[in-house]
Amino acid sequence: MDPRVRDHAETLVDWSARIEAGDDVIVDVDEGAHDLAVAVVEALGERGANVEVTDGSGEITRAYLKGRENGDEPFEADPDHSLALFEAADAYLRLGGGRNTMATADVDPETRRAHARSRTGIREARMDTDWVSTVHPTRSLAQQAGMSIEAYREFVYGAVLRDWESLAAEMDRLKERLDAGSEVQIRIDREDRPTTDLTVGIENRTAVNSAASVAYDSHNLPSGEVFTAPATVEGTVCFDVPMTISGRRVRDVRLEVVDGEVVAFEAATNEDALASILETDAGARRFGELGIGMNRGIDRFTDSILFDEKMAGTVHLALGRAYDACLPEGESGNDSAVHVDLIADVSADASIAIDGEVIQRNGTFRWEDGFEG
Amino acid sequence: MDPRVRDHAETLVDWSARIEAGDDVIVDVDEGAHDLAVAVVEALGERGANVEVTDGSGEITRAYLKGRENGDEPFEADPDHSLALFEAADAYLRLGGGRNTMATADVDPETRRAHARSRTGIREARMDTDWVSTVHPTRSLAQQAGMSIEAYREFVYGAVLRDWESLAAEMDRLKERLDAGSEVQIRIDREDRPTTDLTVGIENRTAVNSAASVAYDSHNLPSGEVFTAPATVEGTVCFDVPMTISGRRVRDVRLEVVDGEVVAFEAATNEDALASILETDAGARRFGELGIGMNRGIDRFTDSILFDEKMAGTVHLALGRAYDACLPEGESGNDSAVHVDLIADVSADASIAIDGEVIQRNGTFRWEDGFEG
Repeated sequence: MDPRVRDHAETLVDWSARIEAGDDVIVDVDEGAHDLAVAVVEALGERGANVEVTDGSGEITRAYLKGRENGDEPFEADPDHSLALFEAADAYLRLGGGRNTMATADVDPETRRAHARSRTGIREARMDTDWVSTVHPTRSLAQQAGMSIEAYREFVYGAVLRDWESLAAEMDRLKERLDAGSEVQIRIDREDRPTTDLTVGIENRTAVNSAASVAYDSHNLPSGEVFTAPATVEGTVCFDVPMTISGRRVRDVRLEVVDGEVVAFEAATNEDALASILETDAGARRFGELGIGMNRGIDRFTDSILFDEKMAGTVHLALGRAYDACLPEGESGNDSAVHVDLIADVSADASIAIDGEVIQRNGTFRWEDGFEG
Repeated sequence: MDPRVRDHAETLVDWSARIEAGDDVIVDVDEGAHDLAVAVVEALGERGANVEVTDGSGEITRAYLKGRENGDEPFEADPDHSLALFEAADAYLRLGGGRNTMATADVDPETRRAHARSRTGIREARMDTDWVSTVHPTRSLAQQAGMSIEAYREFVYGAVLRDWESLAAEMDRLKERLDAGSEVQIRIDREDRPTTDLTVGIENRTAVNSAASVAYDSHNLPSGEVFTAPATVEGTVCFDVPMTISGRRVRDVRLEVVDGEVVAFEAATNEDALASILETDAGARRFGELGIGMNRGIDRFTDSILFDEKMAGTVHLALGRAYDACLPEGESGNDSAVHVDLIADVSADASIAIDGEVIQRNGTFRWEDGFEG
């Protein structure tokens, strides 16, 4: 076994999920993630954790949902056995990485939504655990990224096997500035794109130092972003990083935002996929997240939100639901059934400022070598 | 997909486990059984059942137990999350079929036993469900059987896809005779083997018509045997069908039984594996089961107890634990930590009689064409 698989497993178990002896852990394994599962389960055994390993493959999910479509029984709310499993669990580790990213492509979206709605209690129980989501580098994900499996493995381990402690310390510098600030200004001026000039109010919001560990309220491995919940948004923004939305590739999204609401939009391809998201509910036209990528191990876009949004030299905003961790105690943020991230490249011809002070120009932070004030 | 995979899935879900809408089902999938899992989960979806799919692969089990060996935490009794899952489940479907039948061969047997002991409550909860165990024909099982994968598939589906209703009716004829009888005499006289002359008392015992369905107290697919719990055993017996005991191939077991207890034993190969079983506890020297194979779809031995013991023209006795279903209400039968089946070929030079009346000679039952009284 590639020794990096074991390193990945140990990073997940120790740094990310902080597993201790006696923890009841669910490990959910996608079809192509068997090798990572072997390494993770062995590490969990060494730590003295108790494991229940579930099959989280897309083909199994498709088969079940197709069976439901062929039958005529409605979905039952939160089946007892699954709910009991998740309610009693201390941690949930999702090991993604299938053999076909399109495995569930022919499931009726309404079936998918009905199934998701029927499992609200299970989802909440899962979110109450120390959950962490990661992926094993499979050929299918390499294909989606447009890469050979060898190159993709280098990419994934480059993003995952970081010095997380030191990155957390660096990210804390940005978090402190965001927590102290009241307004973020994002400007991108590139010849071949519409200008971005966006102001995001963040007063009284708390930024999350997303350092790939539940100890930082961070549930992705890799992570490496600092994010907060916008209080206000105003201006125009162009998201030039291609995104897959509802299975379709959307490029060059441009939004005009007044009083926090999207009042005009366009996209160079599959604009209707974007329109469909915006029409979901009232909260889908407002923003739930402003995130700034800080993971320098991610050096290219791979059509995977787990990686793309953490790339250093990018910023993203999400239409829809906000995270509670960013909000003042007792206050609820933007609510929506969706949370769709849109990413802009800020590695060139771009600046991010907090209350007028530029903190990043052309992808280089104020505290880094080469910063040009 | 081979249409027989779907037939197998439907037999399992409908005939064997009797799944209905709203049932909470656990499907436990071995590494090589993915295709069968897809078909089973689709059928469960059609019936309106709720599923939780667990990964039951040998490599995952090995990794966990090896991790435990490397760590220094003792096993915790019945971890909450696993216990909660099984206690809330209505049915448990085990889909065996790995990629390597030796996947756990290097786990210390004491680790294995300690793990098993720590999960007594979980095992009891599982046995309280409508559980059924079956296998998907994998290359690894074909290899163990000494067969090509093509021939092995024919074999498995020949054994599994029976007219179970009609076989159940035939097996009922034998069950009625066993329930009414008080003594079974087994005689095998072959030139190349020691003589078998065994008398098994079965007064007040109830035979199980093991027709591969929970509706018949039968939990294996395929099944096709009638079994009961011996009250007394006396005589000598030679089990000439090779058995794998604790991972080792044991041949030509000969036992001498006095007052129900094994007083002398020998085996042509790996006699010490047999000795180790007999030394487990007091119940391991006594018998928990007498079974008579009736599945004519099984036409050869394949080194798998799931198939071998159901083959028409065989009888088996098990050292160790008896099944409650065979015992009078409130009476507990032979108790032991083990249940090890030993099989004899009775297709030639052999007879089985109940209270002096021969009911099978040379593999042919009294009620079948070609029976020679």
